[in-house]
Amino acid sequence: MRRLDLTTRSREELCDVTHEVREMLQREGWKDGALVLFCPHTTAALTVNEGADPDVVRDVVTNLRGLIPKRGDYRHAEGNSDAHIKTSLVGPSLTLIVEGGKLCLGTWQKVFFCEFDGPRQRQLWIQWLPNA
Amino acid sequence: MRRLDLTTRSREELCDVTHEVREMLQREGWKDGALVLFCPHTTAALTVNEGADPDVVRDVVTNLRGLIPKRGDYRHAEGNSDAHIKTSLVGPSLTLIVEGGKLCLGTWQKVFFCEFDGPRQRQLWIQWLPNA
Amino acid sequence: MRRLDLTTRSREELCDVTHEVREMLQREGWKDGALVLFCPHTTAALTVNEGADPDVVRDVVTNLRGLIPKRGDYRHAEGNSDAHIKTSLVGPSLTLIVEGGKLCLGTWQKVFFCEFDGPRQRQLWIQWLPNA
Repeated sequence: MRRLDLTTRSREELCDVTHEVREMLQREGWKDGALVLFCPHTTAALTVNEGADPDVVRDVVTNLRGLIPKRGDYRHAEGNSDAHIKTSLVGPSLTLIVEGGKLCLGTWQKVFFCEFDGPRQRQLWIQWLPNA
Repeated sequence: MRRLDLTTRSREELCDVTHEVREMLQREGWKDGALVLFCPHTTAALTVNEGADPDVVRDVVTNLRGLIPKRGDYRHAEGNSDAHIKTSLVGPSLTLIVEGGKLCLGTWQKVFFCEFDGPRQRQLWIQWLPNA
Repeated sequence: MRRLDLTTRSREELCDVTHEVREMLQREGWKDGALVLFCPHTTAALTVNEGADPDVVRDVVTNLRGLIPKRGDYRHAEGNSDAHIKTSLVGPSLTLIVEGGKLCLGTWQKVFFCEFDGPRQRQLWIQWLPNA
């Protein structure tokens, strides 16, 4: 398993980690299979979405906040229940296809680390699974 | 990696692709491991749900539309922010178990390509991961 | 593939299955790779979230019920459309990293089977994928 260190800068943001994932792939020389990306935190998640227009991630962040507001019917005393709920909705793991040493993403897709209770020091864990 | 071509017919629909996935499995002769299904689009996702009663997918589509309406606090100019948000909630990848050449699904489960901004020509990408 | 039997006790609950998954890992002697966890039901899902404070899972369950209420614009006659919708939002599969025979989870993370239409007898399916 490999670990990537990340620093998030706001309470809620989607950080594009595509470049870091591609760099690791090249460095390791992994060719055909899949990458398991795993977020080891309970108030952050992983997703794939459009990276070309920054308004897309702004709309995702803003509307998740509308659906699951910071204040609500929460008992968890740390005041970040909204972040825990978003984490289970977006999900902690992603499996991405690798072919011929290249990360297979659609034209507009980028991989995002979703911070829901930052800013913090975070990690992204990556495991390689070969297809033969 | 293999690619499946799909044609969706409405703005929002869940297309049952179980048959196509099973056909590919048989054609390729993959026996024991897992299939990574990946949606290379930013306004479509993948899920598994009940396929017996079509009212289930109707209820999923209708209620996702209620939670994340087409018009709202959106800045992305293409008018499909709702589809991008649903994509991150439902998720772009699925990992399905294969045993003895058979796709392992529960009695009522079907695999669905979730179109949120159609109708369009779409693809579904599939990678095989063997368990030995 | 391995199967774990589970008994849920409420209509909606998050059951911590981390111990059962770790026991299976140790019993099987799997060392480096990933575990695919798959929920073969259409009204239950899988997630990873905080297990230390039980109020976190209480807040997740309560707020998902608020977002997708039991009664609503549903046509599916079994009266559990809310559970089907939550299942697609939380997701049916998880891929967890294993390194040196250990399940890789963050400090506060536990693996949860999410029951949305219990109490019932349930299964959790597990497939091993080696990384070499």
